[in-house]
Amino acid sequence: MDNMDKIPLSVGSGGEEMAEFLKTVVFPNLKEKIDGDAAVIDGIAFTIDSFVADPPFFPGGSIGSLAVSGSINDLVAVGAEPMALALSFIIEEGLDTDVIRRITRDIHHLSEMSGVHVVTGDTKVVQKGAADKVFITSAGIGRKCMDFGEPVVGDKVIVTGDIARHGVAMLLASNQYQLTADIESDCEPLYWLPPAISSFGSHVKWMRDPTRGGVGTILHEFSNAFSLGVRLFDQDIPIKPEVRGVCELLGLEPLHLASEGRMVIIVDNSNADALINELLSHAPGSRIIGEVTSDHKSVTRVVDNYETFVPPLTGEILPRIC
Amino acid sequence: MDNMDKIPLSVGSGGEEMAEFLKTVVFPNLKEKIDGDAAVIDGIAFTIDSFVADPPFFPGGSIGSLAVSGSINDLVAVGAEPMALALSFIIEEGLDTDVIRRITRDIHHLSEMSGVHVVTGDTKVVQKGAADKVFITSAGIGRKCMDFGEPVVGDKVIVTGDIARHGVAMLLASNQYQLTADIESDCEPLYWLPPAISSFGSHVKWMRDPTRGGVGTILHEFSNAFSLGVRLFDQDIPIKPEVRGVCELLGLEPLHLASEGRMVIIVDNSNADALINELLSHAPGSRIIGEVTSDHKSVTRVVDNYETFVPPLTGEILPRIC
Repeated sequence: MDNMDKIPLSVGSGGEEMAEFLKTVVFPNLKEKIDGDAAVIDGIAFTIDSFVADPPFFPGGSIGSLAVSGSINDLVAVGAEPMALALSFIIEEGLDTDVIRRITRDIHHLSEMSGVHVVTGDTKVVQKGAADKVFITSAGIGRKCMDFGEPVVGDKVIVTGDIARHGVAMLLASNQYQLTADIESDCEPLYWLPPAISSFGSHVKWMRDPTRGGVGTILHEFSNAFSLGVRLFDQDIPIKPEVRGVCELLGLEPLHLASEGRMVIIVDNSNADALINELLSHAPGSRIIGEVTSDHKSVTRVVDNYETFVPPLTGEILPRIC
Repeated sequence: MDNMDKIPLSVGSGGEEMAEFLKTVVFPNLKEKIDGDAAVIDGIAFTIDSFVADPPFFPGGSIGSLAVSGSINDLVAVGAEPMALALSFIIEEGLDTDVIRRITRDIHHLSEMSGVHVVTGDTKVVQKGAADKVFITSAGIGRKCMDFGEPVVGDKVIVTGDIARHGVAMLLASNQYQLTADIESDCEPLYWLPPAISSFGSHVKWMRDPTRGGVGTILHEFSNAFSLGVRLFDQDIPIKPEVRGVCELLGLEPLHLASEGRMVIIVDNSNADALINELLSHAPGSRIIGEVTSDHKSVTRVVDNYETFVPPLTGEILPRIC
């Protein structure tokens, strides 16, 4: 990809092509150390994400709910309490003004619910055809309130609810498969998480929200970052039957599909049950779904006593799910 | 505009239509207090801006230099020392990868010069035709280090260099006028400003970078915010002859054209000369260009002893100068 002349769509899917693009094109020129989904500077967590969801409205939310949830969850993932959001709109000339009204209402609803307010913003309008409807970029700041411990073999992997729902909801909303099913996005801000679990201190080892690329992709990132492996217990991974049904019909891997209101948490084995108990009062779908292994850079799943590899995501599934 | 059904291009120009759009469409639904170009939360300044400059490269810079300078200057304008930047790219599928390489080199150059690093980021790729080449959104955080005093009649208005150069450079780069002139954008991060002038304390009353909408628009904002007026001394406003020439040829008002590396500073009358002396060592073009008056919500200029109104900007000059 070092000789990649034109940027392919797959660079935007959050999988291997994006990692390669960042490694070979962006980082060598930036010469900056760019770190995960949020950075922490002098105790202040700082994150940014652009949202290009198409369609901008879908069952369970909108590009506005994604913008609020996405930044809040990225701050939460580094163990920070969200303080404030900044939103910037790029709007296509001639867009129905009502689209912006509805989006801002969703933004308001979730920011009120979270107690995390939009404190500053920007609006650009580009000529008709120079952007597709509306793009929103959301930045967030938070105060770091958790220091994670070092992951070790035997740590447990927890997810705070059923996975892959946002990805499937967007696949259906995009209409390209002529399928209908009653599936709502799980899009939701997890603002309650740091205060709920900060008492676990360094027994919590790692957190990440499984957005683009899904649970599989973020566990590969974990595995690469710590030279450890992860073994998932397939029957314990919460997936709604309708979501599983669509995945089977379309030949999609739920572990590669996005959630927008879930957190994957790696926790000390001896504290896993207590953490689940704490999580259940906020997120009733919380489950232990796997464990950390010594198998360097390997993510596997156990189905009926057979252990198979979960491959990293390659190619694009659907370009604009978030 | 409350009944505006479709969003017009003029909403993106930073003038009256944008103010009206925010007031009638965005704010009533957000129900949040959105404040100037940067907000300050618990001593942390926070800002966001999207850049959609077309063309992405122009004499004196690129969309990458705009992204770095824009966020740094917005932090500086609220009296904060910039700490870090976050950048998010929305890229059109099929874009020459070299465009991203060149942009990231510009970003690196200015962030090294400023000592303000890009600490986190995001990349989205959308289908060919769903965005025009590349958009960059830049967020910044800084530490508030200046508390501004209350503006009063007689305060002086200072600008840190010649104005309108970025606007004219972009007009020429867009090629729509078939004009050529040797004019480079003034795009530049003013990271040096807060440490240089923080000793003036509350003698400094207000700062703003005159980007979209130019010096005229930000002085109208000042005038509205404080129910004071501003009188500009036309012959003291620094404008390069080539810039003035293009403006006269095209019938454009330099006071409505963007600078991307200038600050307008309102300072106590008795400290104005000392502040100019301090500024000159960093920004040799610094000049006193006007004074604060008691004429509520009025911006005027004096040319040859005649005082005329500087109207607020309406309509769009060029949609994508930044």
